[in-house]
Amino acid sequence: MLEEARADGRRSLALTVVGMIHTPYRTPEGTPIQSRFGEGIEATVTVREEYADALTDIEGFERLWLVYWLDRAGPYAPLVVPYRDDRSHGLFATRAPARPNPIGLSVVRLLAREGALLRVADIDVLDGTPLVDIKPYVPEFDAYPDSKAGWFDCNRVDRTRADGRFHGRG
Amino acid sequence: MLEEARADGRRSLALTVVGMIHTPYRTPEGTPIQSRFGEGIEATVTVREEYADALTDIEGFERLWLVYWLDRAGPYAPLVVPYRDDRSHGLFATRAPARPNPIGLSVVRLLAREGALLRVADIDVLDGTPLVDIKPYVPEFDAYPDSKAGWFDCNRVDRTRADGRFHGRG
Repeated sequence: MLEEARADGRRSLALTVVGMIHTPYRTPEGTPIQSRFGEGIEATVTVREEYADALTDIEGFERLWLVYWLDRAGPYAPLVVPYRDDRSHGLFATRAPARPNPIGLSVVRLLAREGALLRVADIDVLDGTPLVDIKPYVPEFDAYPDSKAGWFDCNRVDRTRADGRFHGRG
Repeated sequence: MLEEARADGRRSLALTVVGMIHTPYRTPEGTPIQSRFGEGIEATVTVREEYADALTDIEGFERLWLVYWLDRAGPYAPLVVPYRDDRSHGLFATRAPARPNPIGLSVVRLLAREGALLRVADIDVLDGTPLVDIKPYVPEFDAYPDSKAGWFDCNRVDRTRADGRFHGRG
């Protein structure tokens, strides 16, 4: 795999769908653009039975990272005007979904686990989004509250909900 | 894509390699297990020329998320004894690399950008690891310093460097 990736950067690496995210959001328009802006909104994550054992001990975590496939994102664009600004920035300097690899990343609050089903809150994901990984949120590894955040630190748009700009036909 | 994912969870989603991560770590043994434990270690990220424009304005960010393909991770196991404990836990309740989808996630400190090359520090990634995404680290979205972290909060092993337990032949 390594040699292949080295030999040809365009060679594709295959992801498997391990579950599905079910939320109240059916269309990009009006969906929170970050889980921080979806506070209180509840959702369920159904993990495929074959991966249920991998959820053992997850109940102890207050928050989780959901890693998912932005299946309705539009095509990649190198420069975008993100939701939180009125100027364009390089795609990798934004969290916009129109990425070369449409991988989404959200911190959600874990409410309960029922077998292979997780009840979560604070979500910014479209209904029916394919899940590819779950990682525990660990402040020691993930929390840098004072990190400088470029244009976000002086962003000029207070938008918290999406419109259709980064999405295809759905 | 959505319908396909819904119809068959095992259908694969294809990732493209957008760059390469170059670090001093040639073998899992001795590599920091989290970027927090790789403090000060410098590395370079080379982004493929076709994606160079997407780095515009990234200089303003103190930290970045690197999303990468754990190309030398061993096969998935539902229950693992992670580096930071002496008891087993469900894989999704750990950050171990032997995941159904070997997607790695690290916060690194951005030192400088030189065209399509990023100089970064605080890294826990093996040399030659394929990069699949870069996202800016935004404290408003990503930092929950007081979040409870299950078994990590009472972990019984202080290990900060990897051994070979989660890696295949390399």
